[in-house]
Amino acid sequence: MTTAQLFALTPGEPAGIGPDLCLLLARAAQPHPLVAIASRELLSERAALLGLRIDLLAAAPGNWPSQPAPAGSLYVWDTPLQAKVRPGQLDSSNAAYVLQTLTRAGQGCLDGDFAGMITAPVHKGVINEAGIAFSGHTEFLAELTHTEQVVMMLATRGLRVALVTTHLPLKDVAAAITAERLARVARILHADLVQKFGIAQPRILVCGLNPHAGEGGHLGREEIEVIEPTLELLRGEGLNLIGPLPADTLFTPKHLDQCDAVLAMYHDQGLPVLKYKGFGAAVNVTLGLPIIRTSVDHGTALDLAGSGQIDCGSLQVALETAYQMAASRR
Amino acid sequence: MTTAQLFALTPGEPAGIGPDLCLLLARAAQPHPLVAIASRELLSERAALLGLRIDLLAAAPGNWPSQPAPAGSLYVWDTPLQAKVRPGQLDSSNAAYVLQTLTRAGQGCLDGDFAGMITAPVHKGVINEAGIAFSGHTEFLAELTHTEQVVMMLATRGLRVALVTTHLPLKDVAAAITAERLARVARILHADLVQKFGIAQPRILVCGLNPHAGEGGHLGREEIEVIEPTLELLRGEGLNLIGPLPADTLFTPKHLDQCDAVLAMYHDQGLPVLKYKGFGAAVNVTLGLPIIRTSVDHGTALDLAGSGQIDCGSLQVALETAYQMAASRR
Repeated sequence: MTTAQLFALTPGEPAGIGPDLCLLLARAAQPHPLVAIASRELLSERAALLGLRIDLLAAAPGNWPSQPAPAGSLYVWDTPLQAKVRPGQLDSSNAAYVLQTLTRAGQGCLDGDFAGMITAPVHKGVINEAGIAFSGHTEFLAELTHTEQVVMMLATRGLRVALVTTHLPLKDVAAAITAERLARVARILHADLVQKFGIAQPRILVCGLNPHAGEGGHLGREEIEVIEPTLELLRGEGLNLIGPLPADTLFTPKHLDQCDAVLAMYHDQGLPVLKYKGFGAAVNVTLGLPIIRTSVDHGTALDLAGSGQIDCGSLQVALETAYQMAASRR
Repeated sequence: MTTAQLFALTPGEPAGIGPDLCLLLARAAQPHPLVAIASRELLSERAALLGLRIDLLAAAPGNWPSQPAPAGSLYVWDTPLQAKVRPGQLDSSNAAYVLQTLTRAGQGCLDGDFAGMITAPVHKGVINEAGIAFSGHTEFLAELTHTEQVVMMLATRGLRVALVTTHLPLKDVAAAITAERLARVARILHADLVQKFGIAQPRILVCGLNPHAGEGGHLGREEIEVIEPTLELLRGEGLNLIGPLPADTLFTPKHLDQCDAVLAMYHDQGLPVLKYKGFGAAVNVTLGLPIIRTSVDHGTALDLAGSGQIDCGSLQVALETAYQMAASRR
């Protein structure tokens, strides 16, 4: 489907650290051609503020680079701002700009111009203030690509954690763990590990919902009534699912060494370990999309924009992951 | 209060790995005198099975050791079994024996004979099968010592995690996070860090209940309505509480380097990271008791009893922690 090993990079919120990350990254050469979809003026001003000399090279449809940019340079598909940017100062006038960079990247992936897209953080609040309903990159890209269900997975070197539920109040989690949702999420996780990560027979460890995975029904019955029958059904379809296991003993080498991914039931069951292990080098991968999309795992850090006091580790891993996924893709 | 630096060790379920752990441990000398409260016959038979030569030295009230046992020997306060033990085979006839070892240890701590007690795992099911209502070491010791509220804390080198709720189905957690419970648990955690760990001004990081600590109310309102006002109240009493913080970013060096303990709202929010970090070397500490009690963080492992294929890491840390707590006690 994809015709090029060209990747798109969106710096996200212009007043945040996204532009800084892209510029700091451009000090070294990438192994693949990479195009930042952003305002050239913004990048130029931010580079001056950071005291960085980065050559901004033009790229656009019909004029895509075929080779990686040399160290100290960055391909830019110029996308004009609506208003001048002051680092750290949100301005809802630029909400449409942010969304245009995402649309260009996502549509370019669908069209086969890009092998994948890597996103730096956006600020949901300021986009909504502009009167545009926006609940995040993931939902935006799901809509753009007409995808009904996506799955959030975080990864760091040596560990991948996907979530059955994501941004729900804790009190609503148990009721949201339905057989339908669990089956949909597990199938997407399995399919994407095969198709986008090139793992022929993925082994997936599944957490229980309750402490000690319910301890035979003494600490909750969802394992018995929902999770176990659903895993059994999915095993019949050929998925290799181990569990449900107690979350507090699952994340130990004995189990992790045997698996390709962990499926956690909810946000704070799976992500504290992932971020503890992968601190500063974790990546957010959206599964279920027809395109490859990876993202940094941190926010806009408005107070650090223009300071240079930031760490590119997560963006570096987001790029590496996108490259690996594109290379493994079937 | 305590008159001796003598410690009690209970091997727990006789058919499990507890006796094995005590014997393996006795190959080396301990820094303090330590008395195993167990059947001498059981220990003798298990040692033979393991091919270990351990001298079992008599100890009892009125005849306590004043020096640590030499390497290759273990003090034993002989406590008779009701039935012969076959490794790996549960037998409810010995339930009363197990509870007697705990009573001797707990009462000995209250009486000042022991500076603290260290427990190997019991098997709740087989004690209940014997017709004795028993929900765990912690509850048993709370009753023995007339303690209304205890707090479960797990610790490993460099991290301590205490829990506001413990063994509850996930669906019941949100409703259990009341101002009263949170305040009681936080006060006990603070008091015991001062009194049993010798930390003059403990700094405690507090997790939110919801993902992203509720994100300003968008992902749940318990932080705004219950947690924040309660922390504010407790700060007025002199507690140094930081949070509520999102659990997935709290467990990173930036935060952990600044704290003495983490207070998690529920089991699978706090323990996966702790056990990931401390695998094989984590200890369970019961706070709020008038005595010092630490425990291994694993189960009876019936299938490994008598095999010798076990790791004493957790028991070693449980002993070290009890020694340190007794030394720091105010």
